[in-house]
Amino acid sequence: MSKQTIGFVGTGVMGKSMAKHLQQAGHPIHIYTRTKQKATDLMNNGAFWHDSVASLANASDVIITMVGYPKDVEEVYFGDKGIIENAQPGTYVIDMTTSKPTLAEEIAKHASEKGIHALDAPVSGGDIGARDATLSIMVGGAKADYDKMLPIFELMGQTIYLHGEAGSGQHTKMCNQITNALNMIGVCEAIIYAKKAGLDPIKMIDTVKSGAAGSWALANLGPRILKEDYAPGFYVKHFIKDMTIALETAKELEIHLPGLELALQLYEELSEMGEGDSGTQALMKYFERA
Amino acid sequence: MSKQTIGFVGTGVMGKSMAKHLQQAGHPIHIYTRTKQKATDLMNNGAFWHDSVASLANASDVIITMVGYPKDVEEVYFGDKGIIENAQPGTYVIDMTTSKPTLAEEIAKHASEKGIHALDAPVSGGDIGARDATLSIMVGGAKADYDKMLPIFELMGQTIYLHGEAGSGQHTKMCNQITNALNMIGVCEAIIYAKKAGLDPIKMIDTVKSGAAGSWALANLGPRILKEDYAPGFYVKHFIKDMTIALETAKELEIHLPGLELALQLYEELSEMGEGDSGTQALMKYFERA
Repeated sequence: MSKQTIGFVGTGVMGKSMAKHLQQAGHPIHIYTRTKQKATDLMNNGAFWHDSVASLANASDVIITMVGYPKDVEEVYFGDKGIIENAQPGTYVIDMTTSKPTLAEEIAKHASEKGIHALDAPVSGGDIGARDATLSIMVGGAKADYDKMLPIFELMGQTIYLHGEAGSGQHTKMCNQITNALNMIGVCEAIIYAKKAGLDPIKMIDTVKSGAAGSWALANLGPRILKEDYAPGFYVKHFIKDMTIALETAKELEIHLPGLELALQLYEELSEMGEGDSGTQALMKYFERA
Repeated sequence: MSKQTIGFVGTGVMGKSMAKHLQQAGHPIHIYTRTKQKATDLMNNGAFWHDSVASLANASDVIITMVGYPKDVEEVYFGDKGIIENAQPGTYVIDMTTSKPTLAEEIAKHASEKGIHALDAPVSGGDIGARDATLSIMVGGAKADYDKMLPIFELMGQTIYLHGEAGSGQHTKMCNQITNALNMIGVCEAIIYAKKAGLDPIKMIDTVKSGAAGSWALANLGPRILKEDYAPGFYVKHFIKDMTIALETAKELEIHLPGLELALQLYEELSEMGEGDSGTQALMKYFERA
């Protein structure tokens, strides 16, 4: 059985690594991305370049999108020369961008009307997870479509779950970002307290991280903060996007999330300090300034 | 060399288990506690009962206190018939209550004037950690005193660090409670979101807990919340005490901890709902009512 041809839209830091794994597994890869040079490596290894989403969509058995913001997702799927208009019936489309759950539902609805199979499948694990194919992939959509695409997901990730119908992958990613946001506040407040109280913050982290107050963020980002290493594993600007989506969705669901509201507020102040392109651990700079 | 005689003040849920380990290791144990019957087990195994702290203090080589609130610590150390007044020069006194860092400094100062060695050594790990002698013990005080008491700490805990001079153990415990508090908000907000969005919250937890948004609280208290198991591993009322101390101290240190402030506010509302004697994971009830 020949490998499905995969069209990949958006080969930024994450997308590039993910597409590479698919290419290495023998899938013919078609590419569309805003900045062509970001696809050079993939093209050197035989990927086909397309000048438009329409042309890519028409040529692919499976289309994976990994773009920036919900508005980009909207354009790629519903724009003039978008995927819904141009993909063949029977095509599988997978949006791996972190985006709005309601938009994922809309894509699924319109796709279904055209005989296209749609899944939402945002990821967590950052650039390192993408590079090492250890991403966590949170999928929403029909079970049969999920089963069909599982071998492709397995080329990119490790923890892969179907969470329910269309939008459920995005909803799960929102839960991930909620705990993420609160954990980060805890890490920064503990470190600023430790510093001002004259503790050795490394020793504090070593003590706290292995107990009931521990978190991945404390164990992994805590030490980076102490080295003033604010390089992005995950960008502040993207975190703000995700939290904004989560809060909009929470409003629609009529739930009040005061912790997440606080987190978004702190990160927006951080962004106003010029830290949008820093890693999320740069929240420490907000507390150091405050 | 004969084992030091240890006076134990406060044999509640935690203290009882801790004293038992010391007793089993062969230390003669002297006891004072508010409710005598809580010491029955220990007395059946040979512990000596005292009617006053003064008499216990006078008879002990090492005095460990594990009481409730800072005001109890103050009374036990500085009261009429307190430890500072009645312990012999050369005695070691260890306050393992989670209490105010400034109070720990004061105890150390007055102890030192009387030739008494003082350490602050609050713990984390809850009733299970106390029972299994796997507590994390955060110590503040002089290095020589710490070294001398280390064999005793090792009978009760596993992760044991000296964090600096008097008060440093308490400060480290405050850091622990800060991350603890924020993690708990994240867990509850993620679960309420998952429920309202129609996700299977167990699957959500399984996905999120092993990644960059994971925490001990999510992995361990998340599943208890889903079973509506609000039994106390750690009481809401004690958590409120700890957060109050942390915020008072933060004010003295001139740092602003908006996340912790929010956590205290939510837990106070939870307490007003009558949940003071529930476990900290009962914060979920606040979100379910809201």
